[in-house]
Amino acid sequence: MSNPVIEAIMTTRAIRRFTAEPVTNEEISTCLAAAQQAPSGGNVQPQQYLVLTDPEAKTAVAHWYARAYDRYERSLPEATEFRDESARASWERTRNASRHLADHLADTPAIVLFLQPIIPWAPADAEGPMDIGRLDASVYPAVQNFCLAARSLGIGTAVTTVIRIYTAEVLAALGVPEGRFEIAALVPMGRPRGSFGVAPRKPSTKVTHFNQWGNRP
Amino acid sequence: MSNPVIEAIMTTRAIRRFTAEPVTNEEISTCLAAAQQAPSGGNVQPQQYLVLTDPEAKTAVAHWYARAYDRYERSLPEATEFRDESARASWERTRNASRHLADHLADTPAIVLFLQPIIPWAPADAEGPMDIGRLDASVYPAVQNFCLAARSLGIGTAVTTVIRIYTAEVLAALGVPEGRFEIAALVPMGRPRGSFGVAPRKPSTKVTHFNQWGNRP
Repeated sequence: MSNPVIEAIMTTRAIRRFTAEPVTNEEISTCLAAAQQAPSGGNVQPQQYLVLTDPEAKTAVAHWYARAYDRYERSLPEATEFRDESARASWERTRNASRHLADHLADTPAIVLFLQPIIPWAPADAEGPMDIGRLDASVYPAVQNFCLAARSLGIGTAVTTVIRIYTAEVLAALGVPEGRFEIAALVPMGRPRGSFGVAPRKPSTKVTHFNQWGNRP
Repeated sequence: MSNPVIEAIMTTRAIRRFTAEPVTNEEISTCLAAAQQAPSGGNVQPQQYLVLTDPEAKTAVAHWYARAYDRYERSLPEATEFRDESARASWERTRNASRHLADHLADTPAIVLFLQPIIPWAPADAEGPMDIGRLDASVYPAVQNFCLAARSLGIGTAVTTVIRIYTAEVLAALGVPEGRFEIAALVPMGRPRGSFGVAPRKPSTKVTHFNQWGNRP
């Protein structure tokens, strides 16, 4: 917690329950400008943003989100073993909050869809094709910038992807040209019910290696 | 520039030239803790970090990075048309800086590889398979957190992916178990020669739609 940027990063956790207070267009614009400033391969800045604040648009998307979440939820394994009681409690809190979001997405003050163009791109040379990655590397940093900027304004967000199950239906409902985009993320935003805080994560030292695999810090 | 978090986000640009001053283990740890705090699907936190500060390890990776960048550079189209002179100058600056990084990666104070496990995962139910996305959504937010945390400490970074062309060779050189991971990003870090600042991006308003595709802010 040594500086305000680190503190914002450490306390940006998924928020899935929101108050009814709207977010302003100015707040949304600030977060989108932050998203847009993210790095992208070759500085192509491939993403498009669909901002939903009208009840009709939110309801249309919420319909498909609920269906997607139902299917996703049923596919999850029953968790029966936990490291300890606090791990179980954390898991249950997340499940309940995710369920709440699925049931109430239409009431979220704003929803932002991050769209990523479908571009087949695999450069090749005499030595063969070159896998230098997908556009994901150029879109998810923007999503994270968005969430951190929102946090700094007191606005909660969550990065969700289950809506991808109904990409075609959602994009059609919003008038997006067919076959040109996929949904990288759906991010609800609003003032948090509950509070920001440090979400449970394993220590980074457990997954850090120095100079050779297995050399622990 | 309304608050320190937004300011850090807006002024985190790719830094590809570094002074010889080392980065400390404490600084690296702070950035990794920030990375680790990023959101991930189901909170699985799938990434591993390989931190290279030893000359031998950096030289091994720099060898493959230079080869990868050579191939990537040759595959780029010759840019002959630009919107204006400043667009051309920006393009040339980036090309030159990227070339510089490829030639001097071994001299970078630290290099962090973000590894992403190769996990085939496609949940399905009675209605069919569910494409809810890949692990990328769970790794690149961590990369961005890392870069922003570094920025707040005065440390420059750049998100690069060309090393993926030689994933197998690089991971073998660093003792990573074969076939289990891919490289999501290679991030050099050090004190910037030159300065932080707002990188050129198109305005987010050009790629934002309100409630229906094509409704401009």
